Parts: sequence; C-alpha cells; structure tokens
Amino acid sequence: MDHIKEAVTVEEQAIAAKAAAKKLALLTTADKNEALLAVAKQLEQEYEAILTANDMDMKAGEEKGYDAAFLDRLQLTRERINDFANGLKEVIELEDPTDQVVSEWTLDNGLHVSRITVPLGVIGMIYEARPNVTADATGLALKSGNAIVLKGGSSAIHTNTAIVNVIQEALQQTKVPADAVQLIQSTDRKETAKLFTMKEHIDVLIPRGGASLIQAVVDSATVPVLETGVGNCHMYVDESADADMAIRTFLNAKTDRPAVCNALETLIVHQAWLERNKDALVKALQENGIQAHGDETAVQVLPGCTPAAEADWANEYLGLDVAVRVVDSVEEAIDHIDRYGTKHSEAIISEDEDNVSKFMKAVDAAALYHNASTRFTDGHALGFGAEIGISTQKLHARGPMGLPALTTYKYVMKGNGQTR
Amino acid sequence: MDHIKEAVTVEEQAIAAKAAAKKLALLTTADKNEALLAVAKQLEQEYEAILTANDMDMKAGEEKGYDAAFLDRLQLTRERINDFANGLKEVIELEDPTDQVVSEWTLDNGLHVSRITVPLGVIGMIYEARPNVTADATGLALKSGNAIVLKGGSSAIHTNTAIVNVIQEALQQTKVPADAVQLIQSTDRKETAKLFTMKEHIDVLIPRGGASLIQAVVDSATVPVLETGVGNCHMYVDESADADMAIRTFLNAKTDRPAVCNALETLIVHQAWLERNKDALVKALQENGIQAHGDETAVQVLPGCTPAAEADWANEYLGLDVAVRVVDSVEEAIDHIDRYGTKHSEAIISEDEDNVSKFMKAVDAAALYHNASTRFTDGHALGFGAEIGISTQKLHARGPMGLPALTTYKYVMKGNGQTR
Repeated sequence: MDHIKEAVTVEEQAIAAKAAAKKLALLTTADKNEALLAVAKQLEQEYEAILTANDMDMKAGEEKGYDAAFLDRLQLTRERINDFANGLKEVIELEDPTDQVVSEWTLDNGLHVSRITVPLGVIGMIYEARPNVTADATGLALKSGNAIVLKGGSSAIHTNTAIVNVIQEALQQTKVPADAVQLIQSTDRKETAKLFTMKEHIDVLIPRGGASLIQAVVDSATVPVLETGVGNCHMYVDESADADMAIRTFLNAKTDRPAVCNALETLIVHQAWLERNKDALVKALQENGIQAHGDETAVQVLPGCTPAAEADWANEYLGLDVAVRVVDSVEEAIDHIDRYGTKHSEAIISEDEDNVSKFMKAVDAAALYHNASTRFTDGHALGFGAEIGISTQKLHARGPMGLPALTTYKYVMKGNGQTR
Repeated sequence: MDHIKEAVTVEEQAIAAKAAAKKLALLTTADKNEALLAVAKQLEQEYEAILTANDMDMKAGEEKGYDAAFLDRLQLTRERINDFANGLKEVIELEDPTDQVVSEWTLDNGLHVSRITVPLGVIGMIYEARPNVTADATGLALKSGNAIVLKGGSSAIHTNTAIVNVIQEALQQTKVPADAVQLIQSTDRKETAKLFTMKEHIDVLIPRGGASLIQAVVDSATVPVLETGVGNCHMYVDESADADMAIRTFLNAKTDRPAVCNALETLIVHQAWLERNKDALVKALQENGIQAHGDETAVQVLPGCTPAAEADWANEYLGLDVAVRVVDSVEEAIDHIDRYGTKHSEAIISEDEDNVSKFMKAVDAAALYHNASTRFTDGHALGFGAEIGISTQKLHARGPMGLPALTTYKYVMKGNGQTR
C-alpha cells in the first residue's frame, strides 16, 4: 500500500499542497466535515494496514535500542487508531473558524469595511515519532480550511505513510483534494529543511516536540514559525500560602503527568513558609518518589536534596525530579522565573493579594495561575476543544492553540466608487 | 547635544530596552500619556537642535548625490517637527490597547480563566531615512507599553540622534524609563544585524521601507518579523464594470499618491470592457501622463503602450507607470494576482455579484475592494488611528496595524486549589 510516489521532491509536495489549499478555502463547513468523517471511517476500517506498517517501525526501533517511553509513543493498537478517528469526530463538532465576520463598520464616505476570518493556507508540521500527531494535525488543518505538509520523525515513517495513504484514499471520495495532506517521505535533512524557507508555498511552520527540534526549526526558518511546547514551569509558594493547598497543587503539577510540557519543573518557596511547613513538604516528596535538587538553603533543609547545577534551573526534567529554590520575597521569585522560564505556565500559591497582583503583572508567560496547578494549560482543559500545540511565543497565538490559531483574516471593502 | 554614548553595543542597548520594558509594562495609561505629552512638548521646544542635526544629514546627502525625492523625505522643517508632536498628541487620544480583558469564563471546577492583553515587550524597528518614523514609532510603542530599539537609515543618523536625545530628555521627567527608547548608533552591518537574532531581548522586528530592506530582515531574522509594506496592487475591471466608476477609481488608485504602497501598479481589464471603453481609457491615461506597459492585446489597443516585461508585472513602479493585462474572465484575473500580487490591496470593479464573490473568496490579500480605490488601506483611512505599518503577512496582524498589533495576551487563571 506504499503508493505515495517516492520520487517527489519537497518542493513539488509544497506546490501541490498550495494548489489544494486554494480549492479547500472555497469549500463549505459541510464539505469539510464530510471529508473528516470519511477519513475517520477509513481509519477505523483500514487499521490493519496501519498496524502492519507500525510493526515495521516498532521492530526497527527495537533494533536501534530506543527506550521504552519512545517505543510506547510509537506503538499503535486498534484502540489507538480508533482514538484518532474519535478525535476527528470531535473536530467535526467544533465551530468552523473561517468565514466569520470579526467586526464590520461603515466609513463616513459609505465604504463598508468587514474583517473576515480565512484559512492561513498551507501549514508545515514538523514533529517526532508520535503518529497521533499525523491524524490530529490533519483534522485541525482541514477543518480550518488549510492544507498540511507533514514531516514526522523518521522512526515512524512506515506508520505515517500508512496513515496518510488511508487519509488520501478517504479524501478521494470527498470534495477536499487528496493533495491537501502531504507527508514528506525524504529523510535527507538538506531536502526536508527546504520546507523551512519555502515562503511562497508554506504559510506557517509548527514544530512540535523537544527543545532541540523546535530550536532547529526556529534557527533555520524564514517561513513564520509558531513555536510550541517547551515548558520549564515554576510554582512559587508564597509566605502566605495555605499549606495544604500548596502541597496538593504542587504534587498535582509535578506528578500527574511529569513528561508533559505543563508539568512543574521548579518549586520556588518562601523561606518563612518552608520553615513552617518543612515536614509536610519532606513527607510529600518522599511519599511520591520526587528527587529534589536545590539551592544551598534547600539542601540544608530537605533531607536527600542534592545541590542544583545551572542545568537544573534551566531545563525540563520531564520526570519525578524537581528543582527547589528558596527565596525571601515574591520579587525574588519573579526574577528567577524571568531568568529561567520559557513563557509557558507559571503559578503562585498565596493568600496575599498584593503579591498575587505583582506576580500576575510582572511574569511574562502564556498562562499564569493563582492557587491552582499548572496542568490546566491545555486546549481540552480550558474548553477550546482539540489543540494544535501550546504556543510559547507572543505573536499571533499564545498558550493553547485551537482552530482559530490556524486562521488569519481579510479586510473586505464594499463601495460604490469611493476614491480618496 | 550628542550625549548618546557611542561605545555602547547593540546587545547592551537591547538589554537596557528589555529592562525598561519590564518597568513600562507596569505603568498606568495616565503615566504613559503624560510621558507622550512631555515628549511632544520637548520636540516642539527643541526644534532648533533637531534642525541643526538635520542640516548635517542634508548636506551629506546632497554631497552623496541622493535624488530629490530622497532628500525631501529626509528634510525637516519646524512645521514637520510640529507634525511629530501632533502625531504624539493623537496617540494620547487613542485607547490603551493593554490590560483589556478580551474574554473570560469559568470552568466547571470553578477555575476562572481570563485572557488579558499585554505589551509585546521590545520592538525592533528597522527603517530608511524617514525621520518621522523615529517619532511616530516611538509614540505607538510607548502607548502600547513597549520599549523600542530604533535602527534608522544611516543617512539620517544625525537627525535621528537629535530626535532620540530630545525624547530621552523628556522621558527623564516622567515615569517612563528613558532607556525604553534606544537608537542604534553603529553603522557596522554585522553589529546592527545582531538585532535580528537577539530573541532573548527583542520580541518582534518591524522592517519599514523598500522591498530590499524588508527582504534583508526577513532572510536573516530569527526574531519574529512583522513584514510590512510592499504593495504590488491590482485593479480588475470586469466585463460588467461601470465605465465612469472604473476610470475614476483607477485614476485615484494610480495617481493620488503613486509612491505609496496602496497605490495601483497593474490594471487588469476584461477584453470586452476594453473594446467598449477604449477611448475613455486612452484619454484618462493621456490626460494624467500615465505610461502603460502591456501584454500583446494592450499594446495593440492602447496607443503608446510599450510591451511589458516580467519586471513590469512583478515590481512596484511607485510612479506614473502602469502595467496593463487584458483577460477574458475573472478567473484569469485572479490567477494573475495570485502569481504577482504581494497580498496587500486588490480591487475589482464589477456589477456582477458572482464575479465579485469569486474575487473576494479566491484572492489572498490583506485588503480587498469592490467598486472602490485601493487607497483606503491605511490606518487613518480605515479609522484605526495611527498605524505602525501595513502588514503583508498573515500571522499576528494583517493589513494596517494600529496599537492592538503591538500587544499579545496572557491567560490568567484564578483558583482555590484546583488540580487536574
């Protein structure tokens, strides 16, 4: 079933996607929803072909000695493939973000101005060996009227090829052109990097994955990038913080899903609070198997806490480790976050409204929390529906990006001969 | 009055701007307006110092043999300096785009979510020898709570230094830190290009000027760029177009201010309309001194029309020349615009609603006009107040960019111990 042409170049694929995007932009919501439903059904039906391809990737991955977490993300089951289909069905239920009149007004000369949402055009999606992104991103792209060029991790190439073949087969029965979904087959880095500079054909790049993947895209891209994902998230426990609430929200943010980007990486704690609540914190760390790496004070106060190096403050652990910094004021906490934060999610636990207000004003991040876990920075959790990623940049879209992040707008002016 | 330190590096200036931006973001609207008023008054008072500096640039420019249009843009008068001050006073009257609650809602678990506008941080402004940008961009940046690093054309260096000195002097009497406005003094290209990659300190780059300046920034920037300005604008005169309206709007778009980006560059005309209205069009071209460069049909039909080369279709004339393409359908017109347009402003003159609808749906540009001149793509004309530029890109902001384009947002979550 490997009927995707191998000889096609990245540029040819991008040009085909652009041509498809022009047709796609003219379709109705019903046309797009019918196509999504067709894709969902085809995925449910053709799961065997996808599982066969996935087996090849899994065997290659095992031979290469990839770790268990990597292989778990790569591995598909019939149930996981059904989840892809269900995800597409959820996207069908979401409001079409295009062709909406954002605002309109009439100038004194009678010229009527309206601002109308339209698709971006062609999205370039660069990601690692998570085949679910192939289906999820396709669904969000098509619903918002965009074509998509997918470049997944090479360890998932057979799986992704099989998924995209199924998608394209399904689209052939619908009004959405099959060319609207392109998977880059080339594994040559020079060839695939061309995607990053094809401003004529690609409207936006969305890298999803670890810090090094995102950095590689940002460093070489001239196509606009929506940066996603790296979350070096902090929680500041203020002098005034309620002890139970602080420990409960800390444990949730740290342990609920340590490998995700909205998980907590550094606990910043006020010295006075720590003195009062040392025993409760130590117990929480020990009972949950959390290894602390701290500054001098933390090492003295917390048994088993090892000294933190620069990397402890700067990097995500994505596991059951936590950096612990002891401070004397909210200002010191803000300075620490300012230095090491990645503008993702930052929390303050406090009963002091002045300190909360300072924190909310001064900390520069997509999502700020008062008395809550950082784990809510997520499209589903915040009520946006599915998300294409979590933006850690400031332009265009910040925080969880739902369908509206995949649109832009036009000003449409209607006149009867107006001149200036 | 050259008291800006010459030895300072671009990086030091960017760091100082970032530190100032943090203070600026905490100020009230009244604080910012007071600062803008102080700057306006100081500019009105210290016009002599600015004129003296401008004389130096003018003499150097004359010696270098710059053309009259260039020197006219560079030259200041007391009246022009008063215009800078009046521009700042207009910005004072505009609504503060920050600290606005865009939307808010409460999740089922009681977590309250609000989306609040905040400044971008530090804006890097790269422009040519137009000293008015120095004052205008500073006003818009400060009003929206942003620091600004200015890199103007080196032929205006004395003028810009004098203007920024006056601005900084004025700011010293206000709550806005003087460091919030930085002028890059270095003329070393390698040194100034550092601005384009300082992602830690610069939040967005806005290049304003000709195609080559914008391209140079886009090609080497890793800091997000808001592309502005190049407008290869088209007007399509449909078979059904009213002849008087077509000629009136064409003449306005072409001749009102040919050197600006929303001026018309290419007239696409339906063959049948041209046959009917040939004489009126020829008269309009001749009476207004417009030189046509056309395709084969245009050359045959229009006396004095020279054959168009690829560059005629692709580039802005910015003068009283026009490219003329004759087509047989709205689809052909759309294809031409798709190939040569710069996504700025495109117009259709037509009485056929189907063709209008096709044009509005299919043409990908910031501003689309039905039966009106393209000259309205402008912040003032559309009622936005002052503009920082006209975006021809799709992300973040499209078309004329007023104060809201200089903001981003934060999600602020307020809870009472919510965990996931």
